[in-house]
Amino acid sequence: MIGYVIGRILLTEAALLVLPAVTALAYGESLRPFLLTALLLVAVGLIMGRKKPIRTALYARDGFAVVALAWLLMSAFGALPFVISGDIPFYVDAFFETVSGFTTTGASILTEIEPLHRGILFWRSFTHWVGGMGVLVFVMAILPMTDGHGMHLMRAEVPGPSVGKLVSRMSDTAKILYGIYLVLTVIEIVLLMAGGMPLFDSCIHAFGSAGTGGFSNRNLSVGAYDNAYFDVVIGVFMLLFGVNFNLYYFLLIKRFKDVFHSEELRAYLGIVAAAVIAIAVDILHIYGSVGKSLRYAFFQVSSIITTTGFATADFNSWPTFSKGILVVLMFVGACAGSTGGGVKVARVVILVKSSLADMRKMLHPNAIATVRFEGKPLTERSVRGVHVFISVYVLVFAVSFLLLTLEGFDLITTFTALAACINNIGPGLEVVGPMGNYAQFSPWAKLLLSFNMLVGRLEIFPMLLLCAPSIWKRRIVRQPSR
Amino acid sequence: MIGYVIGRILLTEAALLVLPAVTALAYGESLRPFLLTALLLVAVGLIMGRKKPIRTALYARDGFAVVALAWLLMSAFGALPFVISGDIPFYVDAFFETVSGFTTTGASILTEIEPLHRGILFWRSFTHWVGGMGVLVFVMAILPMTDGHGMHLMRAEVPGPSVGKLVSRMSDTAKILYGIYLVLTVIEIVLLMAGGMPLFDSCIHAFGSAGTGGFSNRNLSVGAYDNAYFDVVIGVFMLLFGVNFNLYYFLLIKRFKDVFHSEELRAYLGIVAAAVIAIAVDILHIYGSVGKSLRYAFFQVSSIITTTGFATADFNSWPTFSKGILVVLMFVGACAGSTGGGVKVARVVILVKSSLADMRKMLHPNAIATVRFEGKPLTERSVRGVHVFISVYVLVFAVSFLLLTLEGFDLITTFTALAACINNIGPGLEVVGPMGNYAQFSPWAKLLLSFNMLVGRLEIFPMLLLCAPSIWKRRIVRQPSR
Repeated sequence: MIGYVIGRILLTEAALLVLPAVTALAYGESLRPFLLTALLLVAVGLIMGRKKPIRTALYARDGFAVVALAWLLMSAFGALPFVISGDIPFYVDAFFETVSGFTTTGASILTEIEPLHRGILFWRSFTHWVGGMGVLVFVMAILPMTDGHGMHLMRAEVPGPSVGKLVSRMSDTAKILYGIYLVLTVIEIVLLMAGGMPLFDSCIHAFGSAGTGGFSNRNLSVGAYDNAYFDVVIGVFMLLFGVNFNLYYFLLIKRFKDVFHSEELRAYLGIVAAAVIAIAVDILHIYGSVGKSLRYAFFQVSSIITTTGFATADFNSWPTFSKGILVVLMFVGACAGSTGGGVKVARVVILVKSSLADMRKMLHPNAIATVRFEGKPLTERSVRGVHVFISVYVLVFAVSFLLLTLEGFDLITTFTALAACINNIGPGLEVVGPMGNYAQFSPWAKLLLSFNMLVGRLEIFPMLLLCAPSIWKRRIVRQPSR
Repeated sequence: MIGYVIGRILLTEAALLVLPAVTALAYGESLRPFLLTALLLVAVGLIMGRKKPIRTALYARDGFAVVALAWLLMSAFGALPFVISGDIPFYVDAFFETVSGFTTTGASILTEIEPLHRGILFWRSFTHWVGGMGVLVFVMAILPMTDGHGMHLMRAEVPGPSVGKLVSRMSDTAKILYGIYLVLTVIEIVLLMAGGMPLFDSCIHAFGSAGTGGFSNRNLSVGAYDNAYFDVVIGVFMLLFGVNFNLYYFLLIKRFKDVFHSEELRAYLGIVAAAVIAIAVDILHIYGSVGKSLRYAFFQVSSIITTTGFATADFNSWPTFSKGILVVLMFVGACAGSTGGGVKVARVVILVKSSLADMRKMLHPNAIATVRFEGKPLTERSVRGVHVFISVYVLVFAVSFLLLTLEGFDLITTFTALAACINNIGPGLEVVGPMGNYAQFSPWAKLLLSFNMLVGRLEIFPMLLLCAPSIWKRRIVRQPSR
C-alpha cells in the first residue's frame, strides 16, 4: 500500500514537470533536464505502484511513513533538473534547493539567481506552489481514494494542530482546498501583471507567496522592483495565504460568523498589526518618511510571520528591537491549515491560554476553569498535543543547533539559519540575511538543514518517526489503529 | 500570617548582617552601612511581625506571595549597605547587584570590583550563600514553625520539579540541608586556604561556589589566580553544589544505592563529561596542551551548568561550537534540589523521556508504555508540571527578550544577558561576557533583568503570580487549599 501511494506521487511529480518544460520550450531552452527526470519518475513510479494493493487501509504509522518517504523521494528526484541543466552542478546543493522549494522554505545556496535558465527558475518556484498545499493533498484531490487512509495522510501533511474535513468526503475536501488555492494564486498573478510585472515574474512571485516559500527570480528579491504597488499586493497576498484555508471555505458558503469569530485569525492579525507599528516606529529614522517605514515594516512582517521570506529591505541592518521582533515572529509562524510554517498562531494561542489557566489554578486549586479556544472547550488532549509538539520542537532545535555550531559561523548566523530552515522561512540574519545565502555551509550542514526543513514542514513527527527502527519492521499482526 | 513570616525573615536578614559587619571591623572599615541597615530591618521586621497570628495555616497561594514578597523586600533592604557605603551610589544598581547576589546569579554592574570595601565585598558574596539554599529554608531551620505551612514555602523556594521531606518534620529537613551546606562550604574554604588562598578570598569564592552564584572579589574572577589547584577545587565544588542535596543525606544515612542509581545524577555527570571533552577538543588549538584545554573546559562547563558563572578564561573568544555548548548548558542548569538554577537536569530528563514515549505512542497507539524516572513511574501530573513550566518559561523569555532588544545591544548580548539572568548564571557573551558586565544597561533594563533573576530563582511562578490581581484581594471565604 505504501509503495502504491508513493508510486502515484512520483507519477504526479512527473506530470507536474510538464509546466516548467513548457516554460523552457517557450524560452527556447533545452527540454532535456525535465524530460530525463520525468522519464525516470515514470519508470520508478510505475514499478513502485505496479500492483494495486488488496487492502487499502492505512494505519497511523503508515501515514507518517508515506508522508516522510514521499517528501524525501520527491525532493531527491526534483533535484535532478538542476543538476542535469548544469545550473546547480553539485547534487547536494540541488537537493538542498529542492527541499527548500517543496518545504516552502526559500533558503537558497545560489549567490546569483538571475543567470539561471527560465525553465529551471520556473521549476524552482513551482515546487513552492506544489509543496505549499501539500503533494498528498493534491494526489487525494485528483485520484480516487477511499476515505479510510486519506485522513491519516492529510493529518500528517497539513500544517497545524488539528485537521478537520470540510465536507464528508476527503477527496472533496482536498479539491475544495486546491480550488481556493488556485483561484487566489491566479488573482495574485493578474494583479501583479496589472501593475506591469512581466507574466514570468508574476508567476514566480505568486508561487512564492502562495506557498509562502520565498524564492524569487531576482537577486534582490521583491526589493528589485522597488515598487510600492507590488509590495502591497505581495504583502497582502502573503498574509492571505497565511490564513487557515477553512476560513475561505466558510466565506464561500456564507458562514461569515465563523470567520469573524475565529480566535486564531484575530490573534494573527493582532500580532501583525502590533509588529508592523512597532517596527515602523523603530525604523522611522532610517527611512525618513512614515509611509516608507510602514511599507517596509508591513512587507517584512507579513513575509516573516507567514514564513515566506521575500525581502524588500535589508532587515539585517535594522535596529536590534526590529530584528528581535522578526526573530520572535519566525517562531510564531502563520495560521494552522495555511501554507505557512512555524509553530503556528493556534498553538501559541493555546499555549498562552492554557498557561494562564494553569497559573490561575495554582492560586485557586479548587476552582474549575474551562479554557475555550475557537468557541469550544479546550480538551486536555489538545493542550497535551501542543505541549508535546513544543517539547520535541525545542529538543530537535537544541540538538541541531549544537551540530550546526560546528560549522564555525557566528552564533546569530547559526541560530537564525536553523530557525529560518526549521520554520520554513528562508532568510535569517548575518551570513544568511536577506542579502546573503546558504552557499558557505558545508555539504553535511546542508543535509542537516534539509532535514530540519522537512521536520518543520511536516510538523516534526513524520521525519523523526522515520528514524525509529520499529517503523521499518515487518508487521505480522496488524492492530487496528484506533 | 504573611506579615508575621516576612517580619521574621527581615529580622533574620538583620542578624545575617553581623558577619559582614565583623569583617568590616576586622579591616578597620566603617560599620555604618551595616548598622543602619540592620536597625531599619529590625524596626520594619518588628512592626510587621508584631502580632503572632491566630491561624498559622498557609495556603498554596499564600506560599507564593510570602516567597515572592520576602525575596523582593530582602533585596530592597540588602541593597542599602552598597548605597550607604558609597561603593554603589545609585540605588537601582545596588538593587540589581543585591538581587543578583540573593538569586545566586552573579551578574554585576561593577566595572571595577577590587577597590570595594572588604565588608561590602563580603556582604555581596554572603548574599550568594544565603540565597543558595534559600532564606525561608533557613528561617524554617532556626525558627519553630508548624509543618502545615512549611511545605508550601519550601516547595516555592527550593529549585526543582518536586520537593520531598527527608524526615518527617519540615524544620528537621531544613536543618539537615543547611548542615550539609555549611559543612561542604567549610571544607571548600579549608581546601582553598591549604592551597595558599587568603582566608578572605577563600570565603568569597566558597560562598560563590556554594550558592552557585559567581561573585568574585577579583576583576578577572578565578582566572586572576591562574592556579590549577584552585581551578580544580572550585570546579569540583561547583559540581558538588549542583547535585541534589537529598543525595548527600542518603550518603550520610548510608543509602548508597539511592545515590548510585539516581538517574538525574547520572544524566548530570554524563552531560558534564560529554561537554568537557567536546569543548576541550574544540579549544585545543588555542591553548596548545591537552591538560590546559581540559582544565579550562572542565572549569567553564562546571561553572555554567551549575549556573555559578565563575570564569578562568574568556570563553567569549572560544570557537562557535564551544560557545554553542555553553549556551545550551545555560538552559539545562543543575540538578533539582541543589543550589543551582536553570531548567534543571531532572526536567530535561523527564522532557526527553516523555517525548520519546509520546512518539512511540504515535507509532503504536494501543501499546501501553509506562515511563519511569528515578525508579518510579512518571505520572501524567508530573509530566504536565514540566510542560507547564517549560511553556511559561518560554513565554516569559520571549516577552523579556523583546523588551530587552529595546536597549539596542546586539542580539547575542541581549539573548545571553537574559539567559544568564533568568537562569541565574551571571556572565553571558559579548558585552556581558566573562570579561564584561551589566553596567551599560539602562536602569529600567536592570529592573527587568532583576525581575528575571527572581523569576528564575523562584522557579517562575511566585513572581508571576505576585502580578496577578486576585492574589491581592481580601478573601472572605477561605477554601482549604488541598
